[in-house]
Amino acid sequence: MSKTIKSTPKKDGFRMPGEFEPHVGSWLIWPERTDTWRDGGKPGQKVLVEVAAAISKYEKCTVLVSAAQYENARARLPEEVRVIEMSVDDAWTQDKGPTFVINDKGDVRGVHWGWNAWGGLEGGLYFPWKLDSQVGQKILEIEDVDRYDATHFVVEGGATQVDGEGTLIITEQCNLNHNRNGDMPKEEIEKNFKEYMNIEKIIWLKRGMVFDETDGHVDDVCFFVRPGVIALSWVDDPKHPQYEVLNEAYEILSGETDAKGRKFEIHKIHIPDVLHITDEENDGIDISASAAPRDPGMSLAVTYINAYIINGAVLVPQFGDQRDKEACDKLAELFPDRDIVPLNTREWSLCGGNIHCMTLQQPRP
Amino acid sequence: MSKTIKSTPKKDGFRMPGEFEPHVGSWLIWPERTDTWRDGGKPGQKVLVEVAAAISKYEKCTVLVSAAQYENARARLPEEVRVIEMSVDDAWTQDKGPTFVINDKGDVRGVHWGWNAWGGLEGGLYFPWKLDSQVGQKILEIEDVDRYDATHFVVEGGATQVDGEGTLIITEQCNLNHNRNGDMPKEEIEKNFKEYMNIEKIIWLKRGMVFDETDGHVDDVCFFVRPGVIALSWVDDPKHPQYEVLNEAYEILSGETDAKGRKFEIHKIHIPDVLHITDEENDGIDISASAAPRDPGMSLAVTYINAYIINGAVLVPQFGDQRDKEACDKLAELFPDRDIVPLNTREWSLCGGNIHCMTLQQPRP
Repeated sequence: MSKTIKSTPKKDGFRMPGEFEPHVGSWLIWPERTDTWRDGGKPGQKVLVEVAAAISKYEKCTVLVSAAQYENARARLPEEVRVIEMSVDDAWTQDKGPTFVINDKGDVRGVHWGWNAWGGLEGGLYFPWKLDSQVGQKILEIEDVDRYDATHFVVEGGATQVDGEGTLIITEQCNLNHNRNGDMPKEEIEKNFKEYMNIEKIIWLKRGMVFDETDGHVDDVCFFVRPGVIALSWVDDPKHPQYEVLNEAYEILSGETDAKGRKFEIHKIHIPDVLHITDEENDGIDISASAAPRDPGMSLAVTYINAYIINGAVLVPQFGDQRDKEACDKLAELFPDRDIVPLNTREWSLCGGNIHCMTLQQPRP
Repeated sequence: MSKTIKSTPKKDGFRMPGEFEPHVGSWLIWPERTDTWRDGGKPGQKVLVEVAAAISKYEKCTVLVSAAQYENARARLPEEVRVIEMSVDDAWTQDKGPTFVINDKGDVRGVHWGWNAWGGLEGGLYFPWKLDSQVGQKILEIEDVDRYDATHFVVEGGATQVDGEGTLIITEQCNLNHNRNGDMPKEEIEKNFKEYMNIEKIIWLKRGMVFDETDGHVDDVCFFVRPGVIALSWVDDPKHPQYEVLNEAYEILSGETDAKGRKFEIHKIHIPDVLHITDEENDGIDISASAAPRDPGMSLAVTYINAYIINGAVLVPQFGDQRDKEACDKLAELFPDRDIVPLNTREWSLCGGNIHCMTLQQPRP
């Protein structure tokens, strides 16, 4: 049973934990829509099988899939992966899933956010998005987790980074964008984050990465290794298109303190070269008026920072780039107690995201 | 995680408990197909809401619903009822759901049976039935319950009655019907029941009730009140169309003993008058080549025995018949420790079943 609670996590003593805290497991969605995922979704699905298999070695992994693809997904995924039917408008569980919040008594609840496919009719990525907007509630009901209804407030999970100790990092480009919550004043936006994630201090970056179709999600820019320690996308070349935004993010974070008053220890992880969709890749994508077009030669935002932290491991995107190994080595230093699991996820980047966007952590209370 | 176990419940010390044993909860499926459920399914859905609401007062209740009807079902069902998306070919959870089996150590597993919509192409009730055949596995995965794969053996839950102590009652009309398991010998059919339900003794009735479109399900004929005690559909009038089969069932059961060697205490519950679909009711059913036709004036098998036993209560079908109260009074005597909950389910009878057919018990190990 999943009851709707007329209160907020902050009022009830629940908080959103950091991704690095212990998980019950992870949720993913089987990619299918052929106007976004090339070649009938098959290359993207193959990557999902690899990522789900990797996760299931460390923690419980659930994959959501349409009725049409159920048989195929069930047969291709390892038996250890739980497969549950769910209809969605597209994949990207981190963004449309619920936020699980926990208290100190071993209880868990969920926050069900508003959703408009990264911008609704003002630059959103597809239409309609009704099935997506039910995903939060559906996941919470499957898990018998009570629900805070925050559907009045549009936000994607990937647009937020928390340290689990009261600090939230977001971007003005995304979270103050008119296409998310219209004319809602900044103070009210901050209040929603503070109440529903139990946040004490919000750090506003100006922008996310260039070429990011989500209007600048922070999960391409940085993540918390642990409270007080941040891994940051970085590029050395001042002429690189990402140089300005990443430098700006570094400057802001360097001058900030977290909710506990700590200065941040910041670790720069150099991004790979800009990635472009090839003509051949583009040719396998359906032409559709319902989804943002993919164009041949289109530049994509890519970074190792769109990694995903699970129990005992960190899953790191790889692109066949010269920087791949360097990123893994640096993350290995930052996570001495976790395995580093490199996974080639170029296919997912072609659709605008990576491992972090495609996964959702369910914390252990 | 739900692993497939290459063994049988009998070999592993698991048994199917009686319905009267404690439940974790109950599962139902939202009725939708408009070539079976009149008026767009709305009257049948209204009954489902009443039944689910009644169950949820006593135990956890989960309703499975298509993506198309999710919003409507979620809004109409009480908050206490868990709603989960699942695609099916039609409702009737008892028949197509898994059989949960338990052991003495507090473990639970599930048996996933073969399914062909009550007879496949030899008189089955609709085509196709592929989504239905996945329901067993899907429910078990939602619950993280390991699965015995018995899909080689076609049987519906409503075609069986067990006492949880080694006794199974089935009918030759249904369980030896060529349209279920082809030329499978009776010995092999018995072996499948014995292995997958952990049965010591099988009692074969000849036939189920007349007008029953399932080829004679036993759950219209009798059920176990507790081990050794049976409630039986009954009719006094020798000219009544059900007289012969019910008398025959009484004779067989009277002469039998159960797996523990006990003679049965048999309680007769007089059935209501034969029920017919009215012209108006029939007019609201879509005409379709994919489902067995519903004809105006069609006679339907109706009985109070298609009741459903839950924690602390018995849900009893009511038809606006003169015998309604008598049935409740008799069942109240048989279940002194449970509430008797009468529910008018004529709508479900029009589609060929009743409360027991529409529900599935999940036992508590």
